[in-house]
Formats: sequence, structure tokens, C-alpha cells
Amino acid sequence: MPHIVLNSAEPGIRGLLRYRPETARPLIELTEVLLRGPNTLTRGERELIAAYVSALNDCRYCSSSHSACAAAQLPGGMALVEQVRADPATAPISAKLKALLTIASAVGHSGRAVTAKHVARARAAGATDTEIHDTVLIAAAFCMFNRYVDGLATIAPDDPALYAAGAQRLVVHGYLTPTPDPSHEA
Amino acid sequence: MPHIVLNSAEPGIRGLLRYRPETARPLIELTEVLLRGPNTLTRGERELIAAYVSALNDCRYCSSSHSACAAAQLPGGMALVEQVRADPATAPISAKLKALLTIASAVGHSGRAVTAKHVARARAAGATDTEIHDTVLIAAAFCMFNRYVDGLATIAPDDPALYAAGAQRLVVHGYLTPTPDPSHEA
Repeated sequence: MPHIVLNSAEPGIRGLLRYRPETARPLIELTEVLLRGPNTLTRGERELIAAYVSALNDCRYCSSSHSACAAAQLPGGMALVEQVRADPATAPISAKLKALLTIASAVGHSGRAVTAKHVARARAAGATDTEIHDTVLIAAAFCMFNRYVDGLATIAPDDPALYAAGAQRLVVHGYLTPTPDPSHEA
Repeated sequence: MPHIVLNSAEPGIRGLLRYRPETARPLIELTEVLLRGPNTLTRGERELIAAYVSALNDCRYCSSSHSACAAAQLPGGMALVEQVRADPATAPISAKLKALLTIASAVGHSGRAVTAKHVARARAAGATDTEIHDTVLIAAAFCMFNRYVDGLATIAPDDPALYAAGAQRLVVHGYLTPTPDPSHEA
């Protein structure tokens, strides 16, 4: 049960966004720019970084939801997402993406855990400065979203089909399109 | 030295905001709403929560900058901010603010560290649901900002006068007004 009385029965961050529209707007815009805006990292790769950090932070709602979004936009689907979540080092992804996930993992611990060596390795694997910047900010942003969602004890459904359906909607409509409130549906 | 090549010599988050305007806009809007928008928590109290979390995360730029903003807007000034950063339990602040800082500290560790007991204690001391929500989101947002600023190894000046001057500008103009780039000044 959430720690505060929300104005909908929606799970995870969806209930929080509906509760406080003033903070919802910039949070949604940040997510859209980071995960779907123009970028040399694909949308699938960026969702994978979000899913990976959320899993390290043990946030069930965010890791399920962004794993589903990554799976829907990566050729390897959910099998690849699960391999990356289990061990990025042995997963069949590029050396660049591995190096960026190492940076994302460090950010999860602390900004100060990101070393010049991590960054040099990413650059040697072909990462641009903007890709390194965006990886740090995606990882940092999910350290916020994970704490927001779990710090208020929001509901995380169990059914993977719900997350897959949400991902299909996000892939088509993006984060800026308001999510229908199921409690108001017929 | 920052991990990536920025397009200004500005310290801390200011250099990052100038580097990537697409992500800067929602980040600045989030900060303005959370720390300065209409709220039953004063601006000084909200800056204090930001400064406290940033100090726990050992982020020198953010803790110095938001300590200066809190000091400029709280009757107790920097002496009070320093007491709170050293030990909120014995600082001369309200029981409600103490309970909210306990929640903020838990959020710094993990969203899952916030317990029903923490929330009940805040509510018993007079905190509303919106105040509890905003405290969790301010703390979570600074877990992002701290990791963003330190994860890219931005510069944090030593001189407290620089942070005090920045705070005076923010108190008057807010976060939405662009900061002048000192490297472009006469």
C-alpha cells in the first residue's frame, strides 16, 4: 500500500505522476528526451541502461517496465535483456554498450565511483562525449525514479503481460502522451 | 577536470546544463517547482532538504550550493544549516522538519529504506501527504543531481563566497533565469 493517499489506483510512477501534475510535467519531459529524443544510442539501448540501473537498485516496477520497453525495441528481445541484467560482460552486446553499462553501474553506487578509466574504456570502444554524458544522466535519473517509486511504496504488479502492454503503448505513443487511468475506464 | 569536454568553464551542474540544453530544460523546471513552487514547506526548508541529502551523498558542489541557498532563506542562516548537516536530531528545527529529514536520509540509501514508521512519525508531527511526497521527490532528485555532477567529474570551487553569490542570484531570480557564463563576461 502506498505511504500516501493517491488519487488513482494506478501502479508505480503512474500514480505519482497523476497525484502531482506540477512535478509530473518536467519528469515526463526528461524521460522523453533521455530515452526517446534524437540520439546516436538507440531507444532500445537507452531503455536497457534504464532497466539495468533499476534492477541494480532493486526497483521492481521500474526494472519490469523498462525491461519490457527495452525488449520491445531490441532485436534480441527479452532474452537479451535478461542476459544483460544477469551479466553484461558475457551478454552479446557491443563493447561500447558494455563500457557504458559499467559507467551506469558506477553511477548507481555514487557519482564519485565513475573513474577516468571507466570513461577512457568507453571512449576507446567508440563512445562519444554525448553518449557518455547521456549514460551518466540516464543512470542518475533512474536513481531518482527508483527512489521516488519505492520511497512512496507504490504498487508494482506481478503480471509481465501488463508491463509488455505498457511498453507497446510507450513504443508507439512515447512518454508525453497521457496514460489512460484504468480506474476510469468502462 | 571533467570527464567530457564541456563548452564552457562553468562549475558543477551549470556546465552540464549549458552543454546539453535538451535535458537542461526539464531539469531546471523540476528544480524550480520542487524548491521554489507554491508549497506549505518554505523555500528555505526545501533547500535544506536538498543540502542535507547532497551532503550525505558527499557531493561538494551541490551541498555547498544548496547550503548557501538554504542559509539565505532561513532565519538561522548558515549556522543553522551547519547544525542540521552535523545532526538534524539536535538542531533547533521543528519536529516535522526532523521527521522529513529522516525520510530524506532513508531515500538517499534506497527508496525501500523508507518505512511506514518513518511516514507515521512525520504525519504525527503534522506533515501532510503532499509534504511527504515532496520530501521523497526532493531527496530522490538530489540523488540524481549529485550523481550527474560527480559522475562527470565537474569542477567544484572552494570559495564559499562564490556559492553565497550564486544563492543571492537564485533567491532573487530563481532557477529558470539563465545564469550568465562568466567566461563570456568582460
